Amino acid sequence: MRKGQTWLFEQKPCIMAGSAVGAIYEKEGAMPQAFDYFFDDMRAGESSFELAERKFLEKACQITLNKAGIKAEELDCFLAGDLMNQIISSSYTARQLGCPYLGQFGACSTSAQTLLLGAAMLNSGYAKQVLCATVSNNGSAEKQFRFPNEYGIQKPDTTQLTVSAAGAGLLAAVGSQVKITSATVGRVQDYGITDGFNLGAAMAPAACDTLLRHLHDLNRQTDFYDIILTGDLGRVGRGCLLDLLRQAGQSFQESRLLDGGVLIYNKEQEVFSGGSGCGCSASVLYGHFLRLLQQGEIARLLFIATGALMSPVSLQQNESIPCIAHAVAIERE
Amino acid sequence: MRKGQTWLFEQKPCIMAGSAVGAIYEKEGAMPQAFDYFFDDMRAGESSFELAERKFLEKACQITLNKAGIKAEELDCFLAGDLMNQIISSSYTARQLGCPYLGQFGACSTSAQTLLLGAAMLNSGYAKQVLCATVSNNGSAEKQFRFPNEYGIQKPDTTQLTVSAAGAGLLAAVGSQVKITSATVGRVQDYGITDGFNLGAAMAPAACDTLLRHLHDLNRQTDFYDIILTGDLGRVGRGCLLDLLRQAGQSFQESRLLDGGVLIYNKEQEVFSGGSGCGCSASVLYGHFLRLLQQGEIARLLFIATGALMSPVSLQQNESIPCIAHAVAIERE
Repeated sequence: MRKGQTWLFEQKPCIMAGSAVGAIYEKEGAMPQAFDYFFDDMRAGESSFELAERKFLEKACQITLNKAGIKAEELDCFLAGDLMNQIISSSYTARQLGCPYLGQFGACSTSAQTLLLGAAMLNSGYAKQVLCATVSNNGSAEKQFRFPNEYGIQKPDTTQLTVSAAGAGLLAAVGSQVKITSATVGRVQDYGITDGFNLGAAMAPAACDTLLRHLHDLNRQTDFYDIILTGDLGRVGRGCLLDLLRQAGQSFQESRLLDGGVLIYNKEQEVFSGGSGCGCSASVLYGHFLRLLQQGEIARLLFIATGALMSPVSLQQNESIPCIAHAVAIERE
Repeated sequence: MRKGQTWLFEQKPCIMAGSAVGAIYEKEGAMPQAFDYFFDDMRAGESSFELAERKFLEKACQITLNKAGIKAEELDCFLAGDLMNQIISSSYTARQLGCPYLGQFGACSTSAQTLLLGAAMLNSGYAKQVLCATVSNNGSAEKQFRFPNEYGIQKPDTTQLTVSAAGAGLLAAVGSQVKITSATVGRVQDYGITDGFNLGAAMAPAACDTLLRHLHDLNRQTDFYDIILTGDLGRVGRGCLLDLLRQAGQSFQESRLLDGGVLIYNKEQEVFSGGSGCGCSASVLYGHFLRLLQQGEIARLLFIATGALMSPVSLQQNESIPCIAHAVAIERE
């Protein structure tokens, strides 16, 4: 069933288990306790950043399956995505898992996209166990989207740092108190920003649009949720979102509106506006906020993952950046 | 509901309308009657192949919406994918349409992936009208995956030619006799092939696996279907699939097992093993076989789209090619 563009999950599929893996910069960050495992560096002992990124994703999937006590061959579907061209990290991980697979692309919004599609599959009886996962790696992302880190290119303060991290969640029909209750599929928003070093500002309108539609569809106020977690707008983008919400006349408590890209690193770390990448929102969600929900410290979370859908080619061709955000409501019963 | 890894669509969502657009090579091909519109060349009057590819997709979407008498703003979801890095053709088209959007990536299997997810959304009441579309462009694909055409690189006979075409289908809960009745989500198959010029052979095991699982799950024989349409294995890949089916002891009529990549071009055209690309299977399905279903010339079609999930980077790093295939059963009531 749906209301407006929001899907309702009457069967209340649940998140059975989740995990996050990171590297050294994430270990030194603001929420090391969120991570289940750290690689010594973003290369993870591999000969290329691409192989390392895949290793991050495989590790997060394996830890999650272990926590849930489920084998890969028991999975009904693997929903995953990443930032690599042709999402190779996800597809090679799907090869290892050996289960049915549907590759997703929504840039950094992919974490919410996999979650809402997985919940829909469970709610409709197409699956009993779905693994949702996303990953990003600073080395592979920087060299693909900008320049190799070794070039030492100077970056503006609006830049976000792609995290080297992966997050995975195991969704099941029953078995946990943490339920996925609804989701709002976003529409592309494009405010004409062409600066690939200011993705937070580009994505903020998408987060705002999806949040307002979600609240409208379900006739809710922001205070229905203990936490509204965007990922990843960074400090600049979060500021834009707050401005847009004020302009829309929306009331909200600023302290309850958090952003994964702001939370993940310390202020002492040189991360400019904050973290970003498919692995950022996923690791903050599955590593930190899932635990708060499991422990009853919060009861209602709205997770809004945002994605900047440009490519290096489209930016070089002077296109503006189309952005999207999807929202997933997660509640403790 | 599901049986094994096959999803059943009890509500029988239907394909209301479909369309295909191509360029001059497709016009000179073996099925010009399948296309609703031809651009004069694969550049389509644009300054880049990437912009042209987007134009192809937008055109196919617009023609399909016109045929169905539906406006873009009435769409509940746009499910699309393409071969470009970060699927920009799809995301920029989503920006133009302005409706909720979920980007899909399964290389050339994306046409079936969008179709099965769209059918699932309709079957579960999450949408009433979903637009599914995929596109590819020879110029943009060749320069991204291999070399610009102008280089005149010599190709082996196993090569497939990326079509410059787009296909789109409008799925609705009711309104047509052409129903989507079930779908089988594939698993990644990798037989160790590392030759990016022999994708047909790499993908054939995936098509075989998904077909056998589909038949097993639903307790059917191949002759249940008037046509089993793979897309796009080409001549070489189709030969491999027939061999694999024989090895598996599967009985089938060779004349009913067709491939979009073989069908789309004339033998006189220099297309090596045949056509390929996200736009090939989609235009053959929505342009040709949908019409046969609508006119009652065939009653049951199994559409199996196959995808090679590698990237240029993964091939350069000596990785083998992971492949996948998804099957969608389409029946005339």
